[in-house]
Amino acid sequence: MEQLLEELLEASQPYTQNGKLANYIPELLKADPNALGIYVMRPDGKRSWAGDCTHKFTIQSVVKPILLLQALLDNGIDVVRSHVGVEATGKPFDAINAINTNEKALYSEHLNPMVNMGAILMCTLIHGDTYQEKFDRLLDLTRKLADNPDIVVDEAVYQSEKATGSKNRALAYLLKTYGMIQGDVEEVLDCYFRACSIQVTCKDLARIGAVLANRGRAPGSDERIFPAKFAQYVNAILLTCGMYDGSGDFAVRVGIPAKSGVGGGIMAVVPTRMGIGIFGPALDKNGNSIAGIRLLEEFSHRMYLSIF
Amino acid sequence: MEQLLEELLEASQPYTQNGKLANYIPELLKADPNALGIYVMRPDGKRSWAGDCTHKFTIQSVVKPILLLQALLDNGIDVVRSHVGVEATGKPFDAINAINTNEKALYSEHLNPMVNMGAILMCTLIHGDTYQEKFDRLLDLTRKLADNPDIVVDEAVYQSEKATGSKNRALAYLLKTYGMIQGDVEEVLDCYFRACSIQVTCKDLARIGAVLANRGRAPGSDERIFPAKFAQYVNAILLTCGMYDGSGDFAVRVGIPAKSGVGGGIMAVVPTRMGIGIFGPALDKNGNSIAGIRLLEEFSHRMYLSIF
Amino acid sequence: MEQLLEELLEASQPYTQNGKLANYIPELLKADPNALGIYVMRPDGKRSWAGDCTHKFTIQSVVKPILLLQALLDNGIDVVRSHVGVEATGKPFDAINAINTNEKALYSEHLNPMVNMGAILMCTLIHGDTYQEKFDRLLDLTRKLADNPDIVVDEAVYQSEKATGSKNRALAYLLKTYGMIQGDVEEVLDCYFRACSIQVTCKDLARIGAVLANRGRAPGSDERIFPAKFAQYVNAILLTCGMYDGSGDFAVRVGIPAKSGVGGGIMAVVPTRMGIGIFGPALDKNGNSIAGIRLLEEFSHRMYLSIF
Amino acid sequence: MEQLLEELLEASQPYTQNGKLANYIPELLKADPNALGIYVMRPDGKRSWAGDCTHKFTIQSVVKPILLLQALLDNGIDVVRSHVGVEATGKPFDAINAINTNEKALYSEHLNPMVNMGAILMCTLIHGDTYQEKFDRLLDLTRKLADNPDIVVDEAVYQSEKATGSKNRALAYLLKTYGMIQGDVEEVLDCYFRACSIQVTCKDLARIGAVLANRGRAPGSDERIFPAKFAQYVNAILLTCGMYDGSGDFAVRVGIPAKSGVGGGIMAVVPTRMGIGIFGPALDKNGNSIAGIRLLEEFSHRMYLSIF
Repeated sequence: MEQLLEELLEASQPYTQNGKLANYIPELLKADPNALGIYVMRPDGKRSWAGDCTHKFTIQSVVKPILLLQALLDNGIDVVRSHVGVEATGKPFDAINAINTNEKALYSEHLNPMVNMGAILMCTLIHGDTYQEKFDRLLDLTRKLADNPDIVVDEAVYQSEKATGSKNRALAYLLKTYGMIQGDVEEVLDCYFRACSIQVTCKDLARIGAVLANRGRAPGSDERIFPAKFAQYVNAILLTCGMYDGSGDFAVRVGIPAKSGVGGGIMAVVPTRMGIGIFGPALDKNGNSIAGIRLLEEFSHRMYLSIF
Repeated sequence: MEQLLEELLEASQPYTQNGKLANYIPELLKADPNALGIYVMRPDGKRSWAGDCTHKFTIQSVVKPILLLQALLDNGIDVVRSHVGVEATGKPFDAINAINTNEKALYSEHLNPMVNMGAILMCTLIHGDTYQEKFDRLLDLTRKLADNPDIVVDEAVYQSEKATGSKNRALAYLLKTYGMIQGDVEEVLDCYFRACSIQVTCKDLARIGAVLANRGRAPGSDERIFPAKFAQYVNAILLTCGMYDGSGDFAVRVGIPAKSGVGGGIMAVVPTRMGIGIFGPALDKNGNSIAGIRLLEEFSHRMYLSIF
Repeated sequence: MEQLLEELLEASQPYTQNGKLANYIPELLKADPNALGIYVMRPDGKRSWAGDCTHKFTIQSVVKPILLLQALLDNGIDVVRSHVGVEATGKPFDAINAINTNEKALYSEHLNPMVNMGAILMCTLIHGDTYQEKFDRLLDLTRKLADNPDIVVDEAVYQSEKATGSKNRALAYLLKTYGMIQGDVEEVLDCYFRACSIQVTCKDLARIGAVLANRGRAPGSDERIFPAKFAQYVNAILLTCGMYDGSGDFAVRVGIPAKSGVGGGIMAVVPTRMGIGIFGPALDKNGNSIAGIRLLEEFSHRMYLSIF
Repeated sequence: MEQLLEELLEASQPYTQNGKLANYIPELLKADPNALGIYVMRPDGKRSWAGDCTHKFTIQSVVKPILLLQALLDNGIDVVRSHVGVEATGKPFDAINAINTNEKALYSEHLNPMVNMGAILMCTLIHGDTYQEKFDRLLDLTRKLADNPDIVVDEAVYQSEKATGSKNRALAYLLKTYGMIQGDVEEVLDCYFRACSIQVTCKDLARIGAVLANRGRAPGSDERIFPAKFAQYVNAILLTCGMYDGSGDFAVRVGIPAKSGVGGGIMAVVPTRMGIGIFGPALDKNGNSIAGIRLLEEFSHRMYLSIF
């Protein structure tokens, strides 16, 4: 396996030059644009890797499925589903999803947990008396999923997100307008900005993916972390909406549930078979790791990973 | 003239029962839904009125042409025009005017000064070192136009707007996202909320309209307050965009430039002939004074006021 | 007056080089891109002109107010108003105005008679047992308004429109989908394509504008052709929607009701004062005669024509 | 297996009463609203069924994946992909997918083969000198996939579709406007209307699904009908876009690629495991068989069919 990963990594590396670092916050421009790494973890706990797998980067949108999982754990599927839809929006992830309705129910149906508005909404559903408490519970779940108690927030990125996040502020105030956020919008945003700034490695993402692939049980020990039905719920949304505007393209080319982030990370889930973590901060026009997608595509073809 | 106004007022009064008070902030619900008044002022300074003309109410959106005037006075037509378009948007006044472009120029062209996003933008164009100073200059202009030095802000309404203005916050943060607001969004919003909370009477609105009708000169004295071309610029935008989603309907039925506000006020301008102030807080579905529009329509027919 | 017109024409002529001929049908590309003419007619029948005033060109969208007039004459304001709205759409004239509603009433309100969908709808409202008869009545009205019995259809343009009008076909079938067209869509389109292909000169447009300016009476004789209220209805819609996406800009810069067509014609109406016909086939990005608008702007400033 | 199917069918039957027959063409209203049937076929050719499995109904939108397959067989993935995108549109299947661009490439990317505009486009990509020939090839493929040479067009439904298909006409003329249809639009539509009117049974749909599940090989014989990569391409699009506006909901609840039609049919694909055909003409608000979805959901849970 290592040999295959090394070979594919080498073949995909040149594609990093066709992409660009995310530039919406200055911190992200400090990444090495040529970096590329892949880490694979199987349900039995076996693991393989190649390339830059120790580099820490911010999780960004890859935290969205974890936010969804925490909301599911705290409220169950029915309550979460009543707050946010599951259809692809046909619009960019950070789109102002404004529709001409005053019906809150219609409105929330129009979102999904993989676009920013839906993910911000997930923050409000996490249990906890304060947003500090809500965030701490999310961070705990992240550590547990990644089997890594050392995961922390990248404070510089967090401050940068907070200082420059006008679009997310607009989205959150719009949610409040529709009655979907109670209380202080800034506190919700603070929770969301910190969630996006959690620092991870390829390995962390592979472990999180492996738990989803193993339908909620820890790889190796099979200890149950969350119910199987939550894994199916999350994996299905990853397949339909996980790769931004390129989700459909990724489904036909690679064929596995995955979530990307503008920090360059991709977490992929091959149900029953493996979790995969990718790091490659040079992005394509959709905001996905350009070499990372290429690497996953080749890996999927070689290993027959497509679920279709 | 008084006799005609009394007669028309009496005929229009019953229409107040078909409308509703604005309810987006609790303060506005304190108004008398049956109130109705009209005040007319001519370029030579002659005046006539009927009904509730001493009642004070908040100016709300009727401040938009004054914001535009102050921006024009401080920057000239070309600079203002480069910041905000003049086309009707085909959308509600408080619409999230989001378009898929990163070009600031394209974006601002998509707004106009009579929708909230455009009016908020006007606040940033007013000269002044601080937003306090900007607002003070706007208030001075309002007093000068109304020839009423006693005009002040309704503090209760202002606090209420500030506490509940999520939609306007969303709009302002979206403007910031597009690079159209520099500095602190909350300061801009504070200026805007205070502007909307300025307290006026029918008579004040009639005087402001009379200056616009007199193409920038004070009624009676003909002292020039602003250039004639600014009056034409403002009057044209009032005609095409001044009555929310009902601007086209108002143009065919009444045929004069006018601006309404959810406080129940309407300021109408009959170029060269008169300014008209209306107060009638019961609103139609577009947010315009329902009996006020009826009254203006009849008045226009009887006096051949239509500019078409 | 002739001297002023000659002077302004000479100054505006160079602007033809900044525009382009309409290219959506090959016939329109045969026009002389440098042509420019202006014809003015007053309510008392006096007339003045300068430039290319004998050249025949197709009326194109300038037929829209005539379609509206015929529909008003045959049905009255209330019936027409119940079939089509009067608000600016905020979209291009040939936009697919699709909205998510199955309510026909809501839908038609969303259109206006100056966009293609609304104008196609006007064809269905004209009285006549067949579409041939409907069109003949429209042509008769056009001749009467222009005081020119020799006006005919340009057969080559008509055939070209008919052969290439996919967008208009899409719009018409969409109207049928919403239940707004009964019977055969192709017959309605045929009527519309012929209407757009009516051949006129500057002089014809000036006469039509003069009748609208004279509120429905023939210039010179004051013979009534249509009721004054129809003139006010049409003029108001021309001001708010007549110049495509540039209607607001035209209102602030020129300040008079006008309708342009991609054939290079503009018909302008200065209520009580004059009708103006322009021919200048080089168009700006909105589809308006680029030198024609410039010429009207200067003429308006020099003669104080703005209604604001 | 039969026993399980009978049991689930009985439990799902009552749900037919919550749905409605499609009413957009009169012919579809002739169906029995309480009908429900399920047919299952495995790659080894084994089959099981319960309920109304001999009833013939029109394939409607379930023909879309067959249109896509024929287009793929005739042109390969790259050519098809260059003509039509693969992202969910976030809009109804028959939406007027109009976007403000003149770039054909951008436009086609905005569609997918499971919405009407994309499916109409597939008709143009099928090889054949005439549309008769193109349709005959599609019908041949359908018969081959269903292993049923007796499949024919329901002439009454076809005539009905043709007579009333204004929305599809609007869509097709819009495609022509964008340069995406060459030649006569009516011929393309005729092919599409006939394709939608192909008569099938549950069994036919199960066999077609089984070929897709068996990645292009005939169940039982393993004879290759189309390449495996085409099956993965089609199955992925079915998962993301196959169930109209309810695709995301179906993915989280049922978790298998499927395509529904307003005739009441659903074809579902469980990769490597089985094809499923459903008939249940009472539809939910999204146009999917209401009891059919319920039946598939229960069947998926009991047999662990979800691919997630």
